[in-house]
Amino acid sequence: MSRTYEMQQSCPIARTLDVIGDRWTMLVVRDLLRGRTRYSDLLTSCAGISPNLLSDRLKTLEQHELVERVFYNDHPPRAEYRLTEKGAALGPAMRALFAWGERYAPRPAVEAT
Amino acid sequence: MSRTYEMQQSCPIARTLDVIGDRWTMLVVRDLLRGRTRYSDLLTSCAGISPNLLSDRLKTLEQHELVERVFYNDHPPRAEYRLTEKGAALGPAMRALFAWGERYAPRPAVEAT
Repeated sequence: MSRTYEMQQSCPIARTLDVIGDRWTMLVVRDLLRGRTRYSDLLTSCAGISPNLLSDRLKTLEQHELVERVFYNDHPPRAEYRLTEKGAALGPAMRALFAWGERYAPRPAVEAT
Repeated sequence: MSRTYEMQQSCPIARTLDVIGDRWTMLVVRDLLRGRTRYSDLLTSCAGISPNLLSDRLKTLEQHELVERVFYNDHPPRAEYRLTEKGAALGPAMRALFAWGERYAPRPAVEAT
C-alpha cells in the first residue's frame, strides 16, 4: 500500500468513495433505496447501464456487504437484491445529493422537436 | 443528447454526479469546505493528486460555478479558490459521506514495520 493511499485512507470520505465512488454504483444504490430489488428492474431503472456493468456493480456491492442476494424461488432459481443495514445507511448521503441536484443542478430544458 | 442520457437527467442525483461524481472532484470540494484556499495547500491536502489533475478539477468546478478564483496579490499574481454558495451547499452531502465512512468503512489496520 503506498504512503499516499494510506494518507487518503485516514479520511472517512475517501474511504466511502472507495466503496461507492463510482457513478453507476451510486445509481444502483439509489434504485435499491427506492425499493427496486430485481435485476431486471434495476436494468430498466438505471437507464443506460449495460447488463455486464450492472452485474459487476451488484457483485462489488455484495462483496462490500452493502447488498445481499436473497433467493425467492428454487426452480428456476430467482434472486433479489436487498440492501443490508450498511447499504441502507447510505440513505442520508443519497438524500443530500438529491437535494443539492434539485436546488443547484436544474434539469436542462429539452428542446421541442 | 441520447434518450438514455435525457432519462438519467430527470434524476437530481444523476445531475449532481454529473457535476461532482468524480473521486478527485469530491476530495477537492472536501478540502475547500475545510478552508483550504490555495493551490499549493490543495495539492498537499489531496494527497496523491497530480498538479494537472488538480488544475483540471478546479477549472471544472469554476465552470460549474462551485468555485471562484479570487486574486489577492497583483505582483506576482496570486489567486485563491473559494467555494460559492452553490459549492458550499455540498456541505451536508459531504458530511453524510463522512459519517457513513466513519461508521461503516473503518480505517484498515496499518501493519507495524
